[in-house]
Parts: sequence; structure tokens; C-alpha cells
Amino acid sequence: MQKAKVYVTLRESILDPQGKAVTTGLHKLGFDEVQNVRIGKFIEITMDGGDESRVTEMCEKLLANYVMEDFRIEMEPGK
Amino acid sequence: MQKAKVYVTLRESILDPQGKAVTTGLHKLGFDEVQNVRIGKFIEITMDGGDESRVTEMCEKLLANYVMEDFRIEMEPGK
Repeated sequence: MQKAKVYVTLRESILDPQGKAVTTGLHKLGFDEVQNVRIGKFIEITMDGGDESRVTEMCEKLLANYVMEDFRIEMEPGK
Repeated sequence: MQKAKVYVTLRESILDPQGKAVTTGLHKLGFDEVQNVRIGKFIEITMDGGDESRVTEMCEKLLANYVMEDFRIEMEPGK
């Protein structure tokens, strides 16, 4: 059993309204040092076999929207 | 300017219906090696000053729901 961690983030050029709302929220709470917030997804996949190329395929087919999002994969050996 | 990365994940004991739906979707696409998927948030904060204790405070006050979620913080020195 092994684990893959996938980080899906909006591309730099894409507006992030959820992040903007959180920035405003943090400012209202007094965190004035916050300049910008961007929110992505963190996906943990537990797999029975398979390697990074399989996870890349999963990202391309389902997990990430390639038009708007980038993804990064980290493989973790299983216990 | 420095960056903080925050990973917000559902606690182990909490059901993750979004993750279950993605697991089913991956199986339908032929990724039979997938055992389980859990989906969390990946938040990137650009800050002008501030340290990890400030980010912990942000998580406790706004970014994470402490009843259902855990969070992990990574600080990155700015450029």
C-alpha cells in the first residue's frame, strides 16, 4: 500500500475569488500582514501498487482541470 | 514578503463524501489500484512579515474547523 499526495493549484493567471474572500476575512480579523491568499486542493490517494505515471494520468483525466489548474505529485512509500 | 503553506485535512474519524465520490470516479475510469481518496485544502498565504504563530492563529480563527479538521503549516522564506 502506498500513498500519493497531489497538490492542485489554480494557475497564476486565474482569479481566485475564494482566496480573495479569505484575504478580506483575515484582514477583518486583524491579520493586516496578509497580502494574498490562494486556495487549492490537497488530495491524498491510498493505492495498492501503481506509480507516479498512473497518478499523473489520474490528474489529467479527473483530479485537475488542466485549462485552469496545475498539479504537483509527491509519492510516499507505504508502510 | 514571505509565504506560508497551510494543509487542512479532515480528521481520520470524519467521513469524506467528496473523497468517496472521487474514488468511485477513478474506479470507473479503470484506476482499480486506488483504495481510498481524501480531499483537503492547500492554502498559500503571501505575508508581509509575521511568523508561524500568526499563521497558527489564522488557522484557529478562520482557515480550519478545529472540530473536524487538522492543519499543518510550512513557512517558506520570501524572495
